[in-house]
Amino acid sequence: MRFHVSSELKYAAMFPSTLILNVHAQRNASQVIVNEHLAVVPRIKLEEFTQEATGNRFLRLETSGHKKLTLKYSATVDCEYQTYRAGSVESTLVSQLSAATIPYLFPSRYCQSDRLSRLAWDLFGKIENPHEKVVAITDWIHDNVEYVRGSTDSMTSAYDTVTQRTGVCRDFTHLAIALCRAVNIPARYFSGYAYELEPPDFHACLECFIGGVWTVFDATRLAHLNGLIRIGNGRDAADAAVASIFGSVKCTSMTVGCQLDKGEKFQPIDRKQLNRGGVALGPGK
Amino acid sequence: MRFHVSSELKYAAMFPSTLILNVHAQRNASQVIVNEHLAVVPRIKLEEFTQEATGNRFLRLETSGHKKLTLKYSATVDCEYQTYRAGSVESTLVSQLSAATIPYLFPSRYCQSDRLSRLAWDLFGKIENPHEKVVAITDWIHDNVEYVRGSTDSMTSAYDTVTQRTGVCRDFTHLAIALCRAVNIPARYFSGYAYELEPPDFHACLECFIGGVWTVFDATRLAHLNGLIRIGNGRDAADAAVASIFGSVKCTSMTVGCQLDKGEKFQPIDRKQLNRGGVALGPGK
Amino acid sequence: MRFHVSSELKYAAMFPSTLILNVHAQRNASQVIVNEHLAVVPRIKLEEFTQEATGNRFLRLETSGHKKLTLKYSATVDCEYQTYRAGSVESTLVSQLSAATIPYLFPSRYCQSDRLSRLAWDLFGKIENPHEKVVAITDWIHDNVEYVRGSTDSMTSAYDTVTQRTGVCRDFTHLAIALCRAVNIPARYFSGYAYELEPPDFHACLECFIGGVWTVFDATRLAHLNGLIRIGNGRDAADAAVASIFGSVKCTSMTVGCQLDKGEKFQPIDRKQLNRGGVALGPGK
Amino acid sequence: MRFHVSSELKYAAMFPSTLILNVHAQRNASQVIVNEHLAVVPRIKLEEFTQEATGNRFLRLETSGHKKLTLKYSATVDCEYQTYRAGSVESTLVSQLSAATIPYLFPSRYCQSDRLSRLAWDLFGKIENPHEKVVAITDWIHDNVEYVRGSTDSMTSAYDTVTQRTGVCRDFTHLAIALCRAVNIPARYFSGYAYELEPPDFHACLECFIGGVWTVFDATRLAHLNGLIRIGNGRDAADAAVASIFGSVKCTSMTVGCQLDKGEKFQPIDRKQLNRGGVALGPGK
Repeated sequence: MRFHVSSELKYAAMFPSTLILNVHAQRNASQVIVNEHLAVVPRIKLEEFTQEATGNRFLRLETSGHKKLTLKYSATVDCEYQTYRAGSVESTLVSQLSAATIPYLFPSRYCQSDRLSRLAWDLFGKIENPHEKVVAITDWIHDNVEYVRGSTDSMTSAYDTVTQRTGVCRDFTHLAIALCRAVNIPARYFSGYAYELEPPDFHACLECFIGGVWTVFDATRLAHLNGLIRIGNGRDAADAAVASIFGSVKCTSMTVGCQLDKGEKFQPIDRKQLNRGGVALGPGK
Repeated sequence: MRFHVSSELKYAAMFPSTLILNVHAQRNASQVIVNEHLAVVPRIKLEEFTQEATGNRFLRLETSGHKKLTLKYSATVDCEYQTYRAGSVESTLVSQLSAATIPYLFPSRYCQSDRLSRLAWDLFGKIENPHEKVVAITDWIHDNVEYVRGSTDSMTSAYDTVTQRTGVCRDFTHLAIALCRAVNIPARYFSGYAYELEPPDFHACLECFIGGVWTVFDATRLAHLNGLIRIGNGRDAADAAVASIFGSVKCTSMTVGCQLDKGEKFQPIDRKQLNRGGVALGPGK
Repeated sequence: MRFHVSSELKYAAMFPSTLILNVHAQRNASQVIVNEHLAVVPRIKLEEFTQEATGNRFLRLETSGHKKLTLKYSATVDCEYQTYRAGSVESTLVSQLSAATIPYLFPSRYCQSDRLSRLAWDLFGKIENPHEKVVAITDWIHDNVEYVRGSTDSMTSAYDTVTQRTGVCRDFTHLAIALCRAVNIPARYFSGYAYELEPPDFHACLECFIGGVWTVFDATRLAHLNGLIRIGNGRDAADAAVASIFGSVKCTSMTVGCQLDKGEKFQPIDRKQLNRGGVALGPGK
Repeated sequence: MRFHVSSELKYAAMFPSTLILNVHAQRNASQVIVNEHLAVVPRIKLEEFTQEATGNRFLRLETSGHKKLTLKYSATVDCEYQTYRAGSVESTLVSQLSAATIPYLFPSRYCQSDRLSRLAWDLFGKIENPHEKVVAITDWIHDNVEYVRGSTDSMTSAYDTVTQRTGVCRDFTHLAIALCRAVNIPARYFSGYAYELEPPDFHACLECFIGGVWTVFDATRLAHLNGLIRIGNGRDAADAAVASIFGSVKCTSMTVGCQLDKGEKFQPIDRKQLNRGGVALGPGK
């Protein structure tokens, strides 16, 4: 499936600062960048680098003396995905995980799985099939947490959300990751562009390592799982933030777009299908 | 310097469980394993693997039906270290950090640098020299946090310790890491064997990336910085725990040893020297 | 119903300290002290005083130079209680509450009702009958929190327990109080002696102001609601702790007893009855 | 000293709700209400009641079907205060406190003195004179916490502020109360009108029970201690909130005034004086 994605970000800097942005679509086996364009105004020092462990493509900018900054990114991306049936998925035991996957079992800044352990086992411990287990976790979050714009901030974590019961996609995702890790399912943060997301924005959801592949889930139910273009992955939002700011910079405007190519026809996957099986976006690296 | 290190761990398992242990000394450019011996009784399924990103050597064990488990590890290790003068150390700007180093600026489970930001800038923001800044941070912790065995547990984090003001080496280290990251100094967790540590135990301290190298600091002041043998490094204790347990297993006994080779003579580095300059143990990978 | 209650407490003091103990049975309209005996060894300065707002009877002790302290309290107490039918209980509106009752709607140290607001309304907001609402709250806690001795400490609060899901009577009670206040039902902490509590100990449960009276509930289900002898009430354990220590004193032994008078025959109230109606112990002052 | 105080509050109600407001000046031995006027538009059910334990005068309003509500309160109040010399103040031992004062030693919702205990003893434990001790506490807060409007919300507590290091008068006060209680000085929340407060608003500060009287302190240094008109006191903001809302009501406008009577001349007390001695506003009940 071919998508055209774009983002326009404006920043105001108080004094010379460094920004690390993560808005580029990843290049990987199941996601091909057909073409891509980046413009930063004014012309400032910038550097792109790819993180080996995740494949995330970061952009580092030095504001130097400039007070205002506009970044425009656009890309045409071909994405593939696989579906699988829940019934055929077997649990991946901890004894079978690779060294690179194990860290996604550990607690992280916004996903304190160690503190949610008993709650997770009580609620979801008895479900055997790993796909059904993650469906139960994301359904529970969908049913018990309300999506309320502005109800949380950058310090909100899964431990807060499990009690406060409000949040945005980032918070839904952190809670889902924490609950998965608590029941020994490796889970990681996914950030990306999302087709038909309303209102248009960057999106966050999660990938779980079940049946030997990273499978995507979305506790908010706001995005098509087969309409996601991967930007970044990591342990939580700390690893895959749109912007990490070192200095004094404020985002003054953000516009995000995601269009289907004219030659394509989109086949959404409905909820019934998702209960019977899942979607894998590819290796993410 | 040649050290002989050893550890003997005993576990009791309730039902079949998986353990991931991190007790092997790392192999890296500045740390050579001369010889090494591992024995696990009874004979059970075990696997050693090395994590690419950190160089940590993990041991994965399946307890299967066994109720009791004893692990003995011993090694002879040659370690090198470098010293440097504080005066010659320049700040490493965020704009100069490599992709692999940047994650050590981000908050993690036990090092919530984002929540300690204002406090860290107020206390240490004005110190220009990066070595002096980390010395000030670790001195502040040494002066304000009391080492009290048993006062904390595996869920205690830097955010707790900064107010509770008690802890053990793990807690001192988490707080130091969080404060360093808050002032934009990359910092990571170091776990290892420590010469003349009293009482003998595994030790935790931190490494900061200053002047282009990972430099070791210890807020507890309990270990010789040039008497450390690296086991693991990572964002915090979640990455470099001695044991990560999946299932139901309890540690019933732990004995740790660290001896100098007979042919060696140990030259401790005193506090005055450390205030004027630091110790780097090598790349850690 | 006539009960014989007793407690023996032993303390070790490091240096001259003050203890405020709350072990005396209250005197009030529905609880008559038939006789009572207090002995403190060695003879030290002590003072009994009754708090006007709650009726709690405190004992203040000065350890002075003494290193060891033994307190023995025993009393014979006649207790009355009323039962009522759930069907006849109407909600008490905030507009009908007295000035003295309103503070029991506010959050307190261990009962952060403000932070549990949305969760409480989601889970229990639709239940109209106030008795049924509190039964639903205490049933939910009974079903979702496990009684685990030693799993919590004196700093554990309702906000912790709602996620950790373990605790003792104090923790069950704090969580129940917080959830009640969150849905606008005044709730207070009750500490007392409890008949047939196993193992014998001081007990904590809660009273809710519904239908114009303070009605007793117990989320642990460990005590007979008509076998309780009131020691103290307050906003939470901070107000009605067995011991508040100012200085350095440790409890080295605690023995608690509660016997029925020989002339009495105890009629336990079973769970079915409690679902249909409740128990009120009297004004508590 | 004669002051003219006033407040105008506007509320918007979504559905029938109850408000409990605390804007009336207290009547007590050192504060005489010369005259007072209250107007609520539209005419709705309202009730005034005084809380026995604190002397706080609450106003309970039923919004019924009304969507908008305006309350105007004005009063002329004669206030007295006493000054005392620090040197003459002796510590009030816990053994000397009355039953009514003891609860102000206990932790409360926003003043978790139990969690700040070690920090408070480390920083302030060695100061003997109780006036100097509280001056040291409020000076420390003034020096280490920044007054930042909008940086906190109604759930922020002393435990947060001690690390976050930003807040408004409410937060400064909660932290000061918690630190005082931690070193065994009874402390309570004071809310009132404040002369020459810029910008005009309700103000919060604290009273400590030292030398046998409730003495007023202000960690923000924004108000004249002899220019305060008492509205309420309590354990923390939960007890003396301007508005406690049961239902769905939003404050849409708030105007507060505090003028000196024309016949009076105000003598501010300067900081040097406050370091040498303090101000007591009267019993507060």
